[in-house]
Amino acid sequence: MPEQSPLDLPEGDPFGPHNLPYGVFSTADEPERRRIGVRIGGHVLDAGAAARSLGSPHTTLLDHSSLNPLLAAGRTTWSEVRRALTAWVTDPGHRSVVEPLLHPLSEVRLHLPYEVADYVDFYASEHHATNVGQIFRPDGAALTPNWKHLPIGYHGRSGTIVVSGTEVVRPSGQRKTPAETAPVFGPSVKLDIEAEVGFLVGTPSALGQPVGLNEFRDHVFGLFLLNDWSARDIQAWEYVPLGPFLGKSFATSVSAWVTPLEALEAARVAPPARDFDLLPYLDDSTAAQPDGFDLRISVEINGQEVSTPPFATMYWTAAQQLAHMTVNGASLRTGDVYGSGTVSGPEVGQRGSLLELTWNGQDAIELTDGKRTFLEDGDEVTLTAWAPGPDGTRVGLGEVRGKITPANA
Amino acid sequence: MPEQSPLDLPEGDPFGPHNLPYGVFSTADEPERRRIGVRIGGHVLDAGAAARSLGSPHTTLLDHSSLNPLLAAGRTTWSEVRRALTAWVTDPGHRSVVEPLLHPLSEVRLHLPYEVADYVDFYASEHHATNVGQIFRPDGAALTPNWKHLPIGYHGRSGTIVVSGTEVVRPSGQRKTPAETAPVFGPSVKLDIEAEVGFLVGTPSALGQPVGLNEFRDHVFGLFLLNDWSARDIQAWEYVPLGPFLGKSFATSVSAWVTPLEALEAARVAPPARDFDLLPYLDDSTAAQPDGFDLRISVEINGQEVSTPPFATMYWTAAQQLAHMTVNGASLRTGDVYGSGTVSGPEVGQRGSLLELTWNGQDAIELTDGKRTFLEDGDEVTLTAWAPGPDGTRVGLGEVRGKITPANA
Repeated sequence: MPEQSPLDLPEGDPFGPHNLPYGVFSTADEPERRRIGVRIGGHVLDAGAAARSLGSPHTTLLDHSSLNPLLAAGRTTWSEVRRALTAWVTDPGHRSVVEPLLHPLSEVRLHLPYEVADYVDFYASEHHATNVGQIFRPDGAALTPNWKHLPIGYHGRSGTIVVSGTEVVRPSGQRKTPAETAPVFGPSVKLDIEAEVGFLVGTPSALGQPVGLNEFRDHVFGLFLLNDWSARDIQAWEYVPLGPFLGKSFATSVSAWVTPLEALEAARVAPPARDFDLLPYLDDSTAAQPDGFDLRISVEINGQEVSTPPFATMYWTAAQQLAHMTVNGASLRTGDVYGSGTVSGPEVGQRGSLLELTWNGQDAIELTDGKRTFLEDGDEVTLTAWAPGPDGTRVGLGEVRGKITPANA
Repeated sequence: MPEQSPLDLPEGDPFGPHNLPYGVFSTADEPERRRIGVRIGGHVLDAGAAARSLGSPHTTLLDHSSLNPLLAAGRTTWSEVRRALTAWVTDPGHRSVVEPLLHPLSEVRLHLPYEVADYVDFYASEHHATNVGQIFRPDGAALTPNWKHLPIGYHGRSGTIVVSGTEVVRPSGQRKTPAETAPVFGPSVKLDIEAEVGFLVGTPSALGQPVGLNEFRDHVFGLFLLNDWSARDIQAWEYVPLGPFLGKSFATSVSAWVTPLEALEAARVAPPARDFDLLPYLDDSTAAQPDGFDLRISVEINGQEVSTPPFATMYWTAAQQLAHMTVNGASLRTGDVYGSGTVSGPEVGQRGSLLELTWNGQDAIELTDGKRTFLEDGDEVTLTAWAPGPDGTRVGLGEVRGKITPANA
């Protein structure tokens, strides 16, 4: 019996040829040589080598150490490259070329696959914003007056975006409880996660020129899971009046795999009904197709699922966030990343942060290895997700994983 | 009588050989070829060509289109290169080589001289923060409780940092006054400036490793003037709870010239007395030398001086800001920029923003071409500054200039 090909995937494999996310990998033989890889099942296709061998006109974009040139090439090229890749992994005539260029996932090292330009983080889940508002401002309105008129966002630190698997050192910083007269310094005692979806800009835009709602797919190449690690005690003391800073800037973990938006056509879903009419630049009520995504996220701590945040419940879409981010004329660059904000659904078990799951530490959650209010040293957090794909398939998103190591002495 | 050399500068020239700021220029002959230039008087020395001609070991760093490789080379190299440049422009034996490599400033185009990595903006003037607090929270405490315990800061948009001379399109966005029931959209009607000093990181740091107060000069290469354009109406509606976003992200203008910290030794000055003991990582009370800088800034609108903000009055130093920014383990990259925050002194005529100078538009200032509350289309804002140099000289900082053009229709 002939050996089975890695391209003969089990039916329903969430990383089948309908998915084909992009990453950058290296092998133990050549640890310094980073190459674009495309995931198929449990393997990574060396995309540049395949392009060279098959004489692809896109070889220079794929035979590269970073996704940035492909990202910058624009939507038409993204589609052409995707069609070519699909043919390479599905057409039996290509097997003899493609199979030797497949590396088992377990034998490669995955790297951050793009150079991050600017990083913006939004706050687009009504359930999350309401929970946070109730926790921090119990006597006031849960949502600020602007919340349903614009997607609130702020800039984060792009230099500390790290790829899945990178260990996260517990941050130290100032904190002060209302009962204390002066701040104290030390390792964060309220280290948290935020389960988010990140969006990756490919096509840049000109300074002074807003990008409209209907241009979302011309500029955004794909999406991925993102964990916006948050030190709640540092954040609470620092964030008035200019927003989060050191409570967030120590690390943001992203998946090693970027799923092209083209793989998620079957996952389009309408966002929730809006409570207010939106200004024209944000009004998506007459869009030809909805811009929400039906992504089902799972949050695990040390292998135990603690939450299942539903991305379909997000109030603001990524298209609205892009339109808002540029409406003042701010330009986009290839490699800009923006996060959706914490994804929390209406149910307790759908909350995307420990702040919400434990109600700021009041109600510990039970793991098999003990209770948790916030993260302990050694805890490993993993986000995974899937979305509906064509013909009843599932599109898997690459996981984002990070383990907490003790604070520096 | 022999023609005078451009190197024979008038006594007291603020751009004499004691200054030597770095930039990147191109000429009309070769508009695409960007080269590192060093300013001497009214001329720019082609530093790469000089290094090549004189057989400098630092030719590869200077014969470049960007300052980034020099920035990354570290403090010892910065000193060596500065010593070499000083010799080239002062030693008569080098004149025959150097003079042909000088270009009149009026004949070159200046570019953004470095690639910006992350951009952080602080809020370090007590006078500015107090004024803003009184304007926006007239019934509350002017300063938030954290203000004198940590240098408040937030991340800005690095992709919209533009070089002096770049026109700034008036941003549009949402605004809402308390009297209005819903936000309106349109061009900002409260477009403002913020006179700041920017600091440029050269030497990177490792993720998870804080940079101490006494390592400031190992990591920061130089400083420059920065205008943090601000749309007050957009900012006021958006900034609670996550801080400024579109009110700032449309443009930040920086000088084309970076002054090395080594040129500013005579400008060191002690920061104001602190009202609270600081946590050890911020405590500069036992530092061998003070880390404040005595920079005298001038703000002009259409050629008329409207304010003279004194940088020496800043409560937090750039060394404290760097220590704070990294105390949670956030890493530094070559090209990171951080702004001091608006520089405002104790006097009315020393305020660094129109928000303060006009008390949020209540008290217009008089220009020869009419009154101003905020900026009008066509207004050109120029920041200049000087600092005490060695032996009674002055060190000039390169200007930052920007003109407002009308909002897009």
